[in-house]
Amino acid sequence: MSLVVIGTVAFDAIETPFGKTDKIVGGAATYASLSASYFYDKVKIVAVVGDDFPQNEIDEFKNHHIDTEGLQIKAGEKSFFWSGKYHNDMNSRDTLVTDLNVLADFDPIIPESYQDCQYLMLGNLTPQVQQTVIKRLHNRPKLIVMDTMNFWMDIALNDLLETLKMVDVLTINDAEARQLSGEYSLVKAANKILTMGPKYLVIKKGEHGALLFGENQIFSAPALPLEEVFDPTGAGDTFAGGFIGYMAKAGEVSFEHMKNAIIYGSALASFCVEKFGTEKIKNLSPSEVSERVQQFVSLSSFQIKA
Amino acid sequence: MSLVVIGTVAFDAIETPFGKTDKIVGGAATYASLSASYFYDKVKIVAVVGDDFPQNEIDEFKNHHIDTEGLQIKAGEKSFFWSGKYHNDMNSRDTLVTDLNVLADFDPIIPESYQDCQYLMLGNLTPQVQQTVIKRLHNRPKLIVMDTMNFWMDIALNDLLETLKMVDVLTINDAEARQLSGEYSLVKAANKILTMGPKYLVIKKGEHGALLFGENQIFSAPALPLEEVFDPTGAGDTFAGGFIGYMAKAGEVSFEHMKNAIIYGSALASFCVEKFGTEKIKNLSPSEVSERVQQFVSLSSFQIKA
Repeated sequence: MSLVVIGTVAFDAIETPFGKTDKIVGGAATYASLSASYFYDKVKIVAVVGDDFPQNEIDEFKNHHIDTEGLQIKAGEKSFFWSGKYHNDMNSRDTLVTDLNVLADFDPIIPESYQDCQYLMLGNLTPQVQQTVIKRLHNRPKLIVMDTMNFWMDIALNDLLETLKMVDVLTINDAEARQLSGEYSLVKAANKILTMGPKYLVIKKGEHGALLFGENQIFSAPALPLEEVFDPTGAGDTFAGGFIGYMAKAGEVSFEHMKNAIIYGSALASFCVEKFGTEKIKNLSPSEVSERVQQFVSLSSFQIKA
Repeated sequence: MSLVVIGTVAFDAIETPFGKTDKIVGGAATYASLSASYFYDKVKIVAVVGDDFPQNEIDEFKNHHIDTEGLQIKAGEKSFFWSGKYHNDMNSRDTLVTDLNVLADFDPIIPESYQDCQYLMLGNLTPQVQQTVIKRLHNRPKLIVMDTMNFWMDIALNDLLETLKMVDVLTINDAEARQLSGEYSLVKAANKILTMGPKYLVIKKGEHGALLFGENQIFSAPALPLEEVFDPTGAGDTFAGGFIGYMAKAGEVSFEHMKNAIIYGSALASFCVEKFGTEKIKNLSPSEVSERVQQFVSLSSFQIKA
């Protein structure tokens, strides 16, 4: 039994009002797998990098017991590179550079040892590649979580809609939920999206928390109010990784478990934004994680009798 | 012992994507006192209207056991009138007409029978008038809640800052918290505002819920996800009225009680937006209110062990 994460493993160069980085390691699969590794010890990644990707960064995955057999290293090619600059409010950013490099013709190879996959995290990638991964697994996983973004709604909507039919949980932000459904009300948007395939929908609202829809129920999770958001890059991927990592640990798919999974995912995401890149989520202690989760408990609990 | 609400009692004409109204009854004191009346039966209002204000609308207050001795009726004058049009997203609106009328020289008279005030709700009004009410009470109430808006920050900031020093709780929205503090981070904004006088700060975030800051704690309350927001007019006033009404019922000022007060205020506000004006909050049954509150409980509860 394992949790397979597919997505980008890449270089980012980030500029925020607090400073800027050189090329640092990023990518959806990087954030999501690191995050999941705090809850589950059989995390395996499927991704592609060039031979410019440093061995010590691959070792970092191994330090987190993340299986990298599915990480293709293309000789003579370069890793995906993204560079962006956040505006002062941290809610919007400009993309400065997108060099697809190895990602341009990424053909995801699923090692035989990954065929025990029970939990599949489809990190943000072309929907076509996400779909290929599902098809290449001999047995359908118990839970498939798909992350995506407005970019694919703009340029590959049909592929996205096809892939959507094959997954259990979709995680998108509020603007994307509105775009995908054509509905402004998030309740109406969720109802529509839940007819497109997924049984559960997570709407990520950044500093406003997240909403979970499914089984005719709604759960509203808070975000931890932070003094400063240092770098939002990867927060959504970290959330998704913590979410599915917790689900794999729970071992059972239910709305109740998903509520907790959202809290754990949010807790990990709240660490992610405190430093540049993966710096913070690379080095968390179990007690740091459980203390942070307890902050979510006290943040949102109140006592009203039935 | 009583709960005194000061604010506008007025006429509104509202246009939303769902329709438009003729002149209907509105005003901060109207919404707040109706809302508070569901939790506390000694609600008294201080406000001013012209003789164009219909007697049956005054009777409506009495039906809710709201004392109107402090409601001045100015012969030969007209009531305050506001007209506005909401944009499609319901988050922004254009003011079409503001006729101050009787409000231009409003001098709040506190009847002797109101001097038992223990809970004071300063609905949105000029800070100068809010301050006058505090000064005219012989004994300082146990809890003073002040609502205000960006308009007063723009044109009467010094008065607002003076009044702030005299109150216990300030309720404003997120944009206003940022404007008042000059800080983008709501945590930093709250820390700054809590040095300006109030011991507690409620930041209203509309469809994203509300945050309570005070006693070195933070509480995050969800908003009820709604299929449709029909008319947001008065939602903030309704929230504030429910908040202080619950506090008066609780009879004790504490962070724990305030958390519940925010949930009750949010529940009443969620009714308010379902119809035009006060239509919905005029006619709620106790069981409707408690069922709605239970929706907030299930919406936000999860089980994570310490």
